[in-house]
Amino acid sequence: MAPSRALFGPARIAVRQFHHPSYNTRQIRGISAYGYEQAKCLVFDNHGEPKNVLRLHGHSISPPHRDLVTVRFLASPINPADINQIQGVYPTKPTWTTALGTSEPIAVGGNEGVAEVLSVGSGVKEVQKGDWVIMRKQGFGTWRTHAQTTMDYLSPIRNKDGLKPEQVGTVSVNPCTAYRMLKDFVDLHPGQWFIQNGANSGVGRAAIQLGKLWGYKSINVVRKRDTGMEELKADLQGLGADVVVTDEEVEKKEFRDKIKELTNGGREPVRLGLNCVGGSLVNSMAKQLAPGSHMVTYGAMSKQPVSLPLSIMIFKQVAFDGFWVSKWAEQKPDEKDACVQEILDLTREGKFKDVPMDRLTWDFNSKQEELVKAVAGTLEGFRSGKGIFVFGET
Amino acid sequence: MAPSRALFGPARIAVRQFHHPSYNTRQIRGISAYGYEQAKCLVFDNHGEPKNVLRLHGHSISPPHRDLVTVRFLASPINPADINQIQGVYPTKPTWTTALGTSEPIAVGGNEGVAEVLSVGSGVKEVQKGDWVIMRKQGFGTWRTHAQTTMDYLSPIRNKDGLKPEQVGTVSVNPCTAYRMLKDFVDLHPGQWFIQNGANSGVGRAAIQLGKLWGYKSINVVRKRDTGMEELKADLQGLGADVVVTDEEVEKKEFRDKIKELTNGGREPVRLGLNCVGGSLVNSMAKQLAPGSHMVTYGAMSKQPVSLPLSIMIFKQVAFDGFWVSKWAEQKPDEKDACVQEILDLTREGKFKDVPMDRLTWDFNSKQEELVKAVAGTLEGFRSGKGIFVFGET
Repeated sequence: MAPSRALFGPARIAVRQFHHPSYNTRQIRGISAYGYEQAKCLVFDNHGEPKNVLRLHGHSISPPHRDLVTVRFLASPINPADINQIQGVYPTKPTWTTALGTSEPIAVGGNEGVAEVLSVGSGVKEVQKGDWVIMRKQGFGTWRTHAQTTMDYLSPIRNKDGLKPEQVGTVSVNPCTAYRMLKDFVDLHPGQWFIQNGANSGVGRAAIQLGKLWGYKSINVVRKRDTGMEELKADLQGLGADVVVTDEEVEKKEFRDKIKELTNGGREPVRLGLNCVGGSLVNSMAKQLAPGSHMVTYGAMSKQPVSLPLSIMIFKQVAFDGFWVSKWAEQKPDEKDACVQEILDLTREGKFKDVPMDRLTWDFNSKQEELVKAVAGTLEGFRSGKGIFVFGET
Repeated sequence: MAPSRALFGPARIAVRQFHHPSYNTRQIRGISAYGYEQAKCLVFDNHGEPKNVLRLHGHSISPPHRDLVTVRFLASPINPADINQIQGVYPTKPTWTTALGTSEPIAVGGNEGVAEVLSVGSGVKEVQKGDWVIMRKQGFGTWRTHAQTTMDYLSPIRNKDGLKPEQVGTVSVNPCTAYRMLKDFVDLHPGQWFIQNGANSGVGRAAIQLGKLWGYKSINVVRKRDTGMEELKADLQGLGADVVVTDEEVEKKEFRDKIKELTNGGREPVRLGLNCVGGSLVNSMAKQLAPGSHMVTYGAMSKQPVSLPLSIMIFKQVAFDGFWVSKWAEQKPDEKDACVQEILDLTREGKFKDVPMDRLTWDFNSKQEELVKAVAGTLEGFRSGKGIFVFGET
């Protein structure tokens, strides 16, 4: 059964019976005065391929006391890093726990998402019922209908007006990555260029838009494809891309002439490169950078290392850096909050557009099989947009 | 004929007849009141291998007027970059000129050196007869007995007392490179480590000594050799090296344990890498760096690129930078003057030792053949120390 594409917004919470084979209790949703919740989560107890290790687990949540907060999730994306984390090849480990009612430790999948506060303990002042929160750290586990935690793990959204859960639920990783990479490595001036590969990715699309807002010009490298190339170009140009080129074009010698022309003979130089691909493409991009530029790597989709030409480093002082949004968020939580807020403001004003999304409704009808398939399908990479769980009545 | 090792200091200028087949004039040296000099230079008019393109060229220098300065060279090293420049594979091009009395443009080899002021024009205030000067920029041409130029190209040495020409003539490139790399990329604290390959090089030896003075600990990687390994270790340890290891040891898995032990389980981390070699050795070194470290490349002796695992860049935020002393000196001339001065002060105080040198006397007897051979021999790399022309009576 194909997942429903229907968006189920947070305003439509209704009284509905909750049935699930793993429970022998019946609970009436919406009677929040009781504060009891029946939660379901996609969990794993060993690393492996998602289709082999993920399963749906149910547990009950009692009313929050003292500093506890009970939330229900609204939207949780499926990021490639989430899959790598389940596979055990990601440096941030999941949070193993027996607090969800199992004898052996399990971990909940997912790292990004937005949730609505259902009820709070007497000691919680930062949020109240109805507020939206996002995750403060990696490893929380966001593929779940409900969770109970403390404010240490949550960042309140100051103003949710006019925003959709999918927008808030995807702001922490990709848009913040693009934002910091454009700002933190080179003092790019309006009119100057950056070049990025993977321009069609979530980060790439965010970088195009933020760059445009700040007056930077972008050269956007996408993988050559036989069909849909013109549509993709038009799509990225619609976001503000100045130039869209294929990886093949970048690796040709004549690309140098094109750069010369675009940069007005170097007077408006290319001073920043963003790389999420790896391999020889990065060298071809690095060659076009002006002296003193930075090439910032935030992904390695091709799984090819970058064979660095040392002469570019020595004689052109091109520096090769890495950026990891999780580490940045951990080191600079206030800066992260400010970044999230700014992007959400831009979103609200219509200046920052979402990536195309493939919405997968998770409601009381959802079966383990279809939820796991939604995660595993992300690996295949031919989804029409970013996979995201949007929670209906659960 | 083997080059004489005798050091001919600047104090021993004497009256001596000057003979050279290319001159039909006779000149009496030491009669500086006349201010005429017969200069000889090692020049080339095309790029190529030094042994094929270098030749000795003679020209005469008239008394300096206005802002001109006439100098005689005291010591000029033969750096690998000088050779690359003659070969045409170095980014700083030589200065082609017809001002030395040729119909076609020629360039003088060499980029580093120290000279003594012989006479100055009426408009020159910064130096006077007897002062020592070094080159302000690359491309001056230092393999010459005399030159006439302006102060734009010269940096006066403020205090030459107690210094040998070879010390002053080699301060600009290697010691300054080591100094800046230790200071400008990471805020290394006393007790923290850096790791460097090519530890036996001029830069390597300077880094060991400066690091020791500043309280940094050094892991020094040298090429494995069958004989003389213990002597080399003792030599570098004598300069202040904390640990000396071979490239083979660094590439073994067990090196990780050694690092753990040396850094007290990471509490005194390795936060800086210096690389002049390239190849897989750099990966092995990079793996030992703490998160947020920098690997600075200033040479590529192995001519192998560095194949970077992107995960080290992303998840450990290890940045890969390049350093080029010429560019730094061009961008920050005042900082360079200060750096030179500080190193010369340390040298005078006996806190900074020269590298082993292979002195090649260039005097009025020197033949083209032996001077060219001295340059070409640098390529073979089995010299006992750094090749340096020390000028006698010319």
